[in-house]
Amino acid sequence: MKTLVRFALYLSCMLLPAGAVAQELQFASLGDFRLESGEVLRDCRVGYRTFGKLNPTKTNAVLFPTWASGTSEQLKSNVGSGRLVDDATYYVIAVDALGNSVSSSPSNSKLQPRMQFPRFTIGDMVHSQYEVVTKVLGLTHLRAVIGVSMGGMQAFQWSVSYPEFMDQVIPIVGSPQLAPYDLLHWQTQIDAIMNDRGWNNGNYTENPARAAEAEFGALLLTTPQHYNKQTTRARVFADLEKAKQESRFDANDKIRQDQAMMALDVTARFGGSMERTAAAVKAKVFVIVATTDHVVTPGPAIEFARLQQSKLLILDSDCGHQAPGCESKQVNQAVSDFLFTN
Amino acid sequence: MKTLVRFALYLSCMLLPAGAVAQELQFASLGDFRLESGEVLRDCRVGYRTFGKLNPTKTNAVLFPTWASGTSEQLKSNVGSGRLVDDATYYVIAVDALGNSVSSSPSNSKLQPRMQFPRFTIGDMVHSQYEVVTKVLGLTHLRAVIGVSMGGMQAFQWSVSYPEFMDQVIPIVGSPQLAPYDLLHWQTQIDAIMNDRGWNNGNYTENPARAAEAEFGALLLTTPQHYNKQTTRARVFADLEKAKQESRFDANDKIRQDQAMMALDVTARFGGSMERTAAAVKAKVFVIVATTDHVVTPGPAIEFARLQQSKLLILDSDCGHQAPGCESKQVNQAVSDFLFTN
Repeated sequence: MKTLVRFALYLSCMLLPAGAVAQELQFASLGDFRLESGEVLRDCRVGYRTFGKLNPTKTNAVLFPTWASGTSEQLKSNVGSGRLVDDATYYVIAVDALGNSVSSSPSNSKLQPRMQFPRFTIGDMVHSQYEVVTKVLGLTHLRAVIGVSMGGMQAFQWSVSYPEFMDQVIPIVGSPQLAPYDLLHWQTQIDAIMNDRGWNNGNYTENPARAAEAEFGALLLTTPQHYNKQTTRARVFADLEKAKQESRFDANDKIRQDQAMMALDVTARFGGSMERTAAAVKAKVFVIVATTDHVVTPGPAIEFARLQQSKLLILDSDCGHQAPGCESKQVNQAVSDFLFTN
Repeated sequence: MKTLVRFALYLSCMLLPAGAVAQELQFASLGDFRLESGEVLRDCRVGYRTFGKLNPTKTNAVLFPTWASGTSEQLKSNVGSGRLVDDATYYVIAVDALGNSVSSSPSNSKLQPRMQFPRFTIGDMVHSQYEVVTKVLGLTHLRAVIGVSMGGMQAFQWSVSYPEFMDQVIPIVGSPQLAPYDLLHWQTQIDAIMNDRGWNNGNYTENPARAAEAEFGALLLTTPQHYNKQTTRARVFADLEKAKQESRFDANDKIRQDQAMMALDVTARFGGSMERTAAAVKAKVFVIVATTDHVVTPGPAIEFARLQQSKLLILDSDCGHQAPGCESKQVNQAVSDFLFTN
């Protein structure tokens, strides 16, 4: 089977323009994968896509993990000229985080389906990506790890899990450790799903994650000010229904990724000291946060940046967690400059 | 029965210090009460408490309706010297809004229990209060209607339902018509309750309103900034559990009051024009809002104030919907001045 796939890829390379095939979804098989908890993910697979070309000195690889509920497919629009990472310059590895419904997840695991899928951590996501990068792609170093939201959390985790492995870490609206408000928010979403009669009926016939994703997305992804500017009283419920229909994220996947974010604490191996954590980070760090972010409130990232003397960009619009999108020109340029000059 | 109660009250007046008895909960029986929808609330009762004394010219009565999920009992702490309304000067009528579990509500109606209780509007609340004020208390005029949050919505509604009936209207973090974000927020809470297996199991054995009240209260009553300053990562879940235990509001009552707020639109009888609505208001209006309010976002109240040339106080802290409490000195003084001078 593997041989067949390889052959198919090879054949495609002959027929398609350079780079086209690399962007297709590929899977790395990690076998039974031991988690930080001691539990094992059976038959662990990690999805990824690559963009651009590795240079001869192997110094231009940038790892780009997914945000919560996001996939490497969705990262595509952030790769390219004038976008977050330019694949004309960098060899970009977009990687599907555990539990995102592409990589091993409650929704696709045959041996550990749904809530039998063990809890995993942001550290486990990062470890799985390290395996892909080193054992499958054969790299010994990364130019940078860059990520947005939960991708930014993975970037922070990379900086402490593998401090020598990359030159730079760029967490965008991410966090090294969730603030109280963020813990409350994810718990509320988990409760809404777990108390739902559609999920909690013994056979998982419905998917309340759609309502949670749509409603909490609308409530918290931007700010009330921004939301009120963007819509009208008449459109609220039609918009909400549309968002529910468009949401495809599995409730069990969502629960496990939310739990991973809640468990994140990069200071854990440093006795809970953010100061000692920051001192142990070797990479040059560029922290980007938004003051009005209600999904990943910016306090812990700002504290980390202050202690680590990271470069810090504070976005200050009413776009909240979506500020990196609303202010993409500024952010993309700042990231491009940082990647280039440091 | 009524005679007995009256006698008991009379007797109590002889024995207790002036004012003490008046503050006790009393009920006005309105019989079958026709709603704006055409449906009828059977055996409608409205709870109220009075504070202070009606002056000989009957010009010092101030009506004070309750906020969402609130009771006239809870308004007590806002009445007195240095508080929102001073009962040394004013005859304060604190009134329980329909559906608040004291006045006729899904939770206490024998003839129309739970979801058999018809939907009612903010206009119905105000109409029921008009009946109490005119027919039970025998007043023909009010000095003012003052209310906080849903109480402020009732104050706005009073200004259009009975424009000649009071000199002043003081809506505090209230709204004449909910903004899109507010509609979304209440619908999310209603969905969380209605999808809950504890509520939606055919026999209403559990009360998911407690979780909704506790979680959404913590998420939206202040701001993420304020929340993160007030608590710690370690305390989040203990605080949440405590709030759930302390919440006593019935899920069905909550649904009906939330629906009443969502249906509010003081412009309805003016063809949807806020301009014509504002022009029809005779009372002097003092609008108090908070810029960071995420429960009653301030846009519509500010627009009303601008069009009606109302006095306007905009609170600007990180306290959000709780700003009138956080900045009570400023608010109480401003209200006192307004009540006195206009």
